[in-house]
Amino acid sequence: MSSSEPFDFRIEYIIDTIKDAQPSVVGLQFPEGFKRRGTAIADRISEATGVEILISANPCYGACDLDVAILDNVDILFHFGHAQLDDNKYSEKVIFIETRSDTDVTEVVRKAIPEITGKRIGVMTTVQHIGKLPDACEILEAEGKECLIGRGDSKIAYPGQVLGCNFSVADGLDCDEYLYIGSGQFHPLGVSLATGKRVLIADPFSNEVREVDPRKIMKQRSAVIANSLDAETFGILVSTKPGQYRMELARQLKELAEKHGKTAYILTMDLITPDQMLQFRVDAFVSTACPRLAIDEVGRFSAPMLTPPEFEIVIGEREWEELTFDEIRGE
Amino acid sequence: MSSSEPFDFRIEYIIDTIKDAQPSVVGLQFPEGFKRRGTAIADRISEATGVEILISANPCYGACDLDVAILDNVDILFHFGHAQLDDNKYSEKVIFIETRSDTDVTEVVRKAIPEITGKRIGVMTTVQHIGKLPDACEILEAEGKECLIGRGDSKIAYPGQVLGCNFSVADGLDCDEYLYIGSGQFHPLGVSLATGKRVLIADPFSNEVREVDPRKIMKQRSAVIANSLDAETFGILVSTKPGQYRMELARQLKELAEKHGKTAYILTMDLITPDQMLQFRVDAFVSTACPRLAIDEVGRFSAPMLTPPEFEIVIGEREWEELTFDEIRGE
Repeated sequence: MSSSEPFDFRIEYIIDTIKDAQPSVVGLQFPEGFKRRGTAIADRISEATGVEILISANPCYGACDLDVAILDNVDILFHFGHAQLDDNKYSEKVIFIETRSDTDVTEVVRKAIPEITGKRIGVMTTVQHIGKLPDACEILEAEGKECLIGRGDSKIAYPGQVLGCNFSVADGLDCDEYLYIGSGQFHPLGVSLATGKRVLIADPFSNEVREVDPRKIMKQRSAVIANSLDAETFGILVSTKPGQYRMELARQLKELAEKHGKTAYILTMDLITPDQMLQFRVDAFVSTACPRLAIDEVGRFSAPMLTPPEFEIVIGEREWEELTFDEIRGE
Repeated sequence: MSSSEPFDFRIEYIIDTIKDAQPSVVGLQFPEGFKRRGTAIADRISEATGVEILISANPCYGACDLDVAILDNVDILFHFGHAQLDDNKYSEKVIFIETRSDTDVTEVVRKAIPEITGKRIGVMTTVQHIGKLPDACEILEAEGKECLIGRGDSKIAYPGQVLGCNFSVADGLDCDEYLYIGSGQFHPLGVSLATGKRVLIADPFSNEVREVDPRKIMKQRSAVIANSLDAETFGILVSTKPGQYRMELARQLKELAEKHGKTAYILTMDLITPDQMLQFRVDAFVSTACPRLAIDEVGRFSAPMLTPPEFEIVIGEREWEELTFDEIRGE
């Protein structure tokens, strides 16, 4: 890994694996942020091994988004940027290259210390920084804090790892507040809503510390819920992506709708886009797919896009006070 | 079929089939033009049978675009708007509802008569009007013309049926010119380029007759080819849709590129969109997927998008004079 490359694509490991396993064809799958590097990485692997390479060009937003179709055509799929989600029938052929970050986290954790008010701190991060959690805890402990790291459920590969759809590492942690190490708002917002506790963000890339403020997103979600209160027809979305498929939940939501005298249709698809949903004339949608979809693409759909807990509020089966982010939990 | 509904969705047949076969779950898949009717059609089927229904919300542009993922969840899939493409491993569970049109074609064929200069006329149409070919031939024959209808290859369900990616019904027809009955430009343009013969369009919806003029599209394609002549790197696109999958062709094109000292990457995906291809930095793309993609979306990609025959021209393995539309042929 060169000093100018903050992420470890493990090219030497990949080359060794290919030389050992002698596959005829390998696949490479990258999340959106790494796709531009795909051809250069393919060049390096190809030059060193001569193996035939297929690059997945499907959109990819997580380990949930494993390219199942490419698996029919390759002996090994290298899936970059995510940790394995949980064992499934596809795992055998897939090697997850987690692209760990070499970025130092100690500076921003030190910067966070004066902002931390409690003593017992729940610490979490994404897989990119998971190897840096011991560094973070060492600093916290040197300042007399306790560093608590949750194990998480079966979807979680590493203690302290948080996903955009799974905050289980925060479950039952007897802490005063949380420290999230990473960039982005979504994961710490989810933890804030799931736990009701204070969450600090320490971003090692921008070197900034800030406190999560869930008020804006709660207003936005409340507006979506309010706009759905008169809905008579619902389109319940099920993604067929292996890690997003929740047909049983969709069926339960449909039954719930019907119990309340509403009409619901189950719509299945791979990727969900606002354009594609234009064709369906319903009063509101409910997404059982990626929990981020309704949040990140708010206002871009032709009808309000609810999460399952929000739908329960709309239909009168959940209190407004119990509004949280949707999660896809394991065991 | 009511007089206000020009297409036959065969709802009674579908209901009878469900009552006979007693499936637990059925799927409905519609092409883009019919998707808006999906929920109303689901309502009618549901009211009559009580069967559980899943509606595919994936984009659908042909019988090639069978929703394979939904098949895991349904006992029968009703696929609307297209004729069966050819037998494949998915066919067993799929019933193709061709949505034949009841629209009269005789008026526009009569209108075409003065424009027809030859004696032997090759007649063709899409599956929607396929039942009206005898009416068309009767009129032509009453005017002293010969009506020639090609059988087509294994992808073609009915004599005289033309697809946007298969003009095999025009093959070897000993005719003076062609008459295409239908709306749209793409199919008759393809026949014009494939055969070099005159093609008349008789549009039964607009009641207009016009002659195909391939000059504009040829200029456009020539510009795309010209813009690719300096390309050193190519992204060769393979769709994993069952009816669009041409991996062997992609491998041949990659070899051809390498033979000429160029670099080529094989990129696999389900749906191809201009946004998605932005991430790949190559000098030109070659689509082995739906042959319409490069034509219909011209100028919308970040690099020139070539068809396979156009790529052969770029690489120097085909003459400019041999430029035709790409086809996906059967046996």
